[in-house]
Amino acid sequence: MLMQELGAEVIKVEMPLRGDDARYFGPFKNGKSAYFMSVNRGKKSISLNLKSPKGKAILLKLAEKADVITENFRPGTMEKLGLSYDEIKKVNPQIIYASTSGFGQTGPDSKKPAYDMLVQAMSGMMSITGWQDKPPTRVGVSIGDLGAGLYTIIGIISALYSRAITGKGQRVDVAMLDCQLSLLENAIVRHDVNGESPKPGGNQHPTITPFQVFRTKDSYMAISVGNNAMWQNFCKLLKREDLLENPDFADNMKRTENRDKLLPQFEEILEKQNLAYWEKLFDQAKLPYSPVNSIGEAMQHPQVAARNMIVETTDSITGKMKMAGNPIKMTNIPEEKTRVAPPEIGQHNKEIYGTVLGFSESEIKALEAEGVI
Amino acid sequence: MLMQELGAEVIKVEMPLRGDDARYFGPFKNGKSAYFMSVNRGKKSISLNLKSPKGKAILLKLAEKADVITENFRPGTMEKLGLSYDEIKKVNPQIIYASTSGFGQTGPDSKKPAYDMLVQAMSGMMSITGWQDKPPTRVGVSIGDLGAGLYTIIGIISALYSRAITGKGQRVDVAMLDCQLSLLENAIVRHDVNGESPKPGGNQHPTITPFQVFRTKDSYMAISVGNNAMWQNFCKLLKREDLLENPDFADNMKRTENRDKLLPQFEEILEKQNLAYWEKLFDQAKLPYSPVNSIGEAMQHPQVAARNMIVETTDSITGKMKMAGNPIKMTNIPEEKTRVAPPEIGQHNKEIYGTVLGFSESEIKALEAEGVI
Repeated sequence: MLMQELGAEVIKVEMPLRGDDARYFGPFKNGKSAYFMSVNRGKKSISLNLKSPKGKAILLKLAEKADVITENFRPGTMEKLGLSYDEIKKVNPQIIYASTSGFGQTGPDSKKPAYDMLVQAMSGMMSITGWQDKPPTRVGVSIGDLGAGLYTIIGIISALYSRAITGKGQRVDVAMLDCQLSLLENAIVRHDVNGESPKPGGNQHPTITPFQVFRTKDSYMAISVGNNAMWQNFCKLLKREDLLENPDFADNMKRTENRDKLLPQFEEILEKQNLAYWEKLFDQAKLPYSPVNSIGEAMQHPQVAARNMIVETTDSITGKMKMAGNPIKMTNIPEEKTRVAPPEIGQHNKEIYGTVLGFSESEIKALEAEGVI
Repeated sequence: MLMQELGAEVIKVEMPLRGDDARYFGPFKNGKSAYFMSVNRGKKSISLNLKSPKGKAILLKLAEKADVITENFRPGTMEKLGLSYDEIKKVNPQIIYASTSGFGQTGPDSKKPAYDMLVQAMSGMMSITGWQDKPPTRVGVSIGDLGAGLYTIIGIISALYSRAITGKGQRVDVAMLDCQLSLLENAIVRHDVNGESPKPGGNQHPTITPFQVFRTKDSYMAISVGNNAMWQNFCKLLKREDLLENPDFADNMKRTENRDKLLPQFEEILEKQNLAYWEKLFDQAKLPYSPVNSIGEAMQHPQVAARNMIVETTDSITGKMKMAGNPIKMTNIPEEKTRVAPPEIGQHNKEIYGTVLGFSESEIKALEAEGVI
């Protein structure tokens, strides 16, 4: 989806009749998968049975003309289909061939089944999310899937850039598990420094204080006191200048050490007034804060609107649908308010098989009748 | 860090003497920031005071020779320094100029201060992470920062690829808030379909059942029953074939609807045996699962080792340090077990100012004495 936003022509290759599994994932709108809609906008679709010899031959013809093939079967599947990197390279030595999988193309667990949930659990991501008095907690989005998608795109575009300079294609191999390790960032360092695995931190920052979510009278508010100048303003705003004299809270390291003594004092004050009251004071003091928005509130945020981060697509069955826009703003990529709806299965068969590959109308009909496309 | 892994020469431009703020962020090892170490490996560093006229002139000279400039000041700062995209374009029209900020270069909140914590709160990310009986919960890693980094890299490399074809440079503008919206993925669709904001889901999948973390006698275990074939195997494994006859649990939609009736029955069985007992049975049945690993356990996972996802760097002060490897495996990028340690402030002054920009040794000494570098 993101590569299409950046200007790529993306052709989705789907099993005839059944299509992508995601077409059957909820939530549904008028019986159609809204989930599928939201992540497949602007793509083209061809139907193609890769298990039939004719289907395989057609994929190889397409691969001759493609810049990139990207797949996320379980490792070994493309090999079984006769569509491995080595096979594809024979017809197009310059191809970029990207594989995204749970555990990667190598290693003892390579061929095990993976799901976002399992990768979040296996990587340690769940062990540092949530609360110490609660079970391990999933990140609220499918960060296992999303992370792997982002790193795969980086690999693909890097390979394209490299090819533009060297003329050489290459294989990209991205594993969901590896990407979670990469996203753990300072948790790995924290383990390395003291040999202990970090614990879930609720809604506090592990090493900065106060830097967390507080309860106000009617709502929650995230506050980030990032340095000593802000600390002084914060104490003044709460009329607790006395804390500035206390050596236990003299710098961030002390404040974090003595967090249990410090935080209840702020909680007590902040709970006495509504969010709106504090927002006004924090704005005046130029102190960083944010309400804790619901998804609906975030979607309606003026800054989100100004950045065109909620776009619309229109489909004959679902009608208008809202989805996230493109977060990569680039001078040469126009900002559109709407997006082309996702394709039906095989919607672009005529264009791709006819115009691009040169099949005649009767050949296309015969392939359809045989169940190849 | 990631661009350096992919082969870029990355020159960090730091304030003389003080350097990058991250050099003062914990955790520390022998008094040196282990955090800084972990995200700056393999880079070069020059010291340069951008506020001095000579410093600015030197940056413009460097920009003439650079492919990319990337910065994450608050919007307006580079303009004040006289180093805006327009200024840089004058000396290098083909430059890629990437800016990463909290809220982007445009919009009413553009110039507000941002932190990972605030962006997680503002975007709705916190509202769907954690538990309904707990306050809003932070994702255990700085997904606000990390997400923006990944999208910025995609923008930069896309711009490089585009330039290789068209010859034209461009500006990339990425906002932390925008990236969180993009990562919300199906949460936006769920809101769009029924007008309600999704709630935090603990460690369950919102629309698949059973697909969550269960407690065993001694530990936690993530289980993903992703389709009906797995459902049958799962019930057999737990000796609850009777559930297969129950119309309330006939398909995933029913199982999710009747989750409150279904799950306690599994919890009761799974709690009776240790994780190791279940692991053996799940392996035999080829059912997907994972232990919920701590950070330490994840770092020692055999698959993580096989993928070279924990690498080492050696520094004279901290000694050996472990950090995450490169998750983007590419044919033409060699896999190394070690990494070059991060630079000291200005460690590469001689190389960059001398060899690259052609300053003499005495000129470099004079610039140092003046505090320009």
